[in-house]
Amino acid sequence: MPQQRPKISHASRALTYTVQASNEHGEQVATEIAGEGPLTLYLDKREIVTLMTLGAAPEALALGYLRNQRLVGSIEEIAEVQVDWETEAVAVTTRHGVTHDEKRLGKRTVTSGCGQGTMFGDLMEEIERIHLPEDAILTVATLQALLENVRHHDTLYKKAGALHGCALAQGAEILYYVEDVGRHNAVDAIAGMMWLDGISGSDKIFYTTGRLTSEMVIKAAQVGVPFLVSRSGLTRMGWEIAQKVGVTMIGRAQGRHYLIFTGEQRLQRTSMPAEVAHP
Amino acid sequence: MPQQRPKISHASRALTYTVQASNEHGEQVATEIAGEGPLTLYLDKREIVTLMTLGAAPEALALGYLRNQRLVGSIEEIAEVQVDWETEAVAVTTRHGVTHDEKRLGKRTVTSGCGQGTMFGDLMEEIERIHLPEDAILTVATLQALLENVRHHDTLYKKAGALHGCALAQGAEILYYVEDVGRHNAVDAIAGMMWLDGISGSDKIFYTTGRLTSEMVIKAAQVGVPFLVSRSGLTRMGWEIAQKVGVTMIGRAQGRHYLIFTGEQRLQRTSMPAEVAHP
Repeated sequence: MPQQRPKISHASRALTYTVQASNEHGEQVATEIAGEGPLTLYLDKREIVTLMTLGAAPEALALGYLRNQRLVGSIEEIAEVQVDWETEAVAVTTRHGVTHDEKRLGKRTVTSGCGQGTMFGDLMEEIERIHLPEDAILTVATLQALLENVRHHDTLYKKAGALHGCALAQGAEILYYVEDVGRHNAVDAIAGMMWLDGISGSDKIFYTTGRLTSEMVIKAAQVGVPFLVSRSGLTRMGWEIAQKVGVTMIGRAQGRHYLIFTGEQRLQRTSMPAEVAHP
Repeated sequence: MPQQRPKISHASRALTYTVQASNEHGEQVATEIAGEGPLTLYLDKREIVTLMTLGAAPEALALGYLRNQRLVGSIEEIAEVQVDWETEAVAVTTRHGVTHDEKRLGKRTVTSGCGQGTMFGDLMEEIERIHLPEDAILTVATLQALLENVRHHDTLYKKAGALHGCALAQGAEILYYVEDVGRHNAVDAIAGMMWLDGISGSDKIFYTTGRLTSEMVIKAAQVGVPFLVSRSGLTRMGWEIAQKVGVTMIGRAQGRHYLIFTGEQRLQRTSMPAEVAHP
């Protein structure tokens, strides 16, 4: 736990809504859909960004965004996080005021959208900051148990679709599971929760339903997690960055199937399956 | 066709790559993955944005981005679009120079990421600009034939995963099909192709594999297409915007199943199914 935990609101809002639709037979079907709304982030009264979010974990999302964008250096600097859905705003107040890095804020001008820019300007710098533990080990049995736990996890996605989920796990145990309309929001919220609870990533596993693009790999590595597991596929740049930062990247993980793309030395296979050992 | 078509490069690059992975049995598996790389857009030598893209249609992507962000008013203003993968840049040159709207460029500072901001600052303004034809009609038979054509379309997704596809169709015929690592890039590229070829959206159907979030609905409506069909689900804000702009929104369209969420009056059902008419 951080020495000084910020005062935070707990302002989750309605996450799903029921709307009427017609199916292919012309029948009325009540259908659940995911919430989505704007949330404007203010840091010491300065407007930083407007996030389109489900709104399940707005305080953690704001903190994780500030953490991953390197706009605030430590959780101890933050005095308060207040979400107000009336004004669709989250106000983050620091203890001593932050020196706004105009160059860093300015860089974001040339970055926007889904796969449209983002943090590329700082990419090489980010990669060099990241140091992942070499000696972390994941056994195949733990990985399979985790995938089974993820499969049975009660998610909004199963009800409403149109959401991505991210989880942080210790062994097969899911510590956090966050869903949002954007993959990046979900990973940012996990980063915020880890910050709030003073949790290190070095012995954890990061799971995502989303694709492993460049930005997802960097964001998972930024919080120091050596294992990255996705239900989906990956891109070449995600793969290249995973190699550079030395993350163990496992993709297309569904049911009992998965593919290990990088960092295979951290995966421990049992020397002989039980059914072979005892025929 | 526009009266003056810009001079453009045709600089698509390698779209998939084969990497070695290990499966759950420890076997080596050659696996195809999607390309992803940065492409920095310059408008009259001013740096605008860095897009992370597959690179299948970089010229159309650049044009569509400028169109959808309202940074250039018409295709006739554009003299040249040159992509150079060596420098990972696309240079767009206008005929007479554009007056950079600093306020509009400035607004993008507070907008970034996947579901993280984007064009929200201009949202209401965009909605009011959009006028979709009330009298456009889509028959159920045409919709079903289009979904069948989409299903059989040869895609990189089937080989490499981790991609979203967008298509523009006239009736059941697919005019363009663009895949990219980001949903927004794919829809921007379609907008660029329509601009280049002088194609109106008023009698077309827009199809996407991606979720119908606020930004997707706006981008499809911006190019004047009255029908929006997605294989995936939708968010509440996507639904609200679809109602406001009057688009016919069809979601969860897979196989012969689909749900009509808004604008059902444009969908023409056959008065009586054949098997009932001729028992």
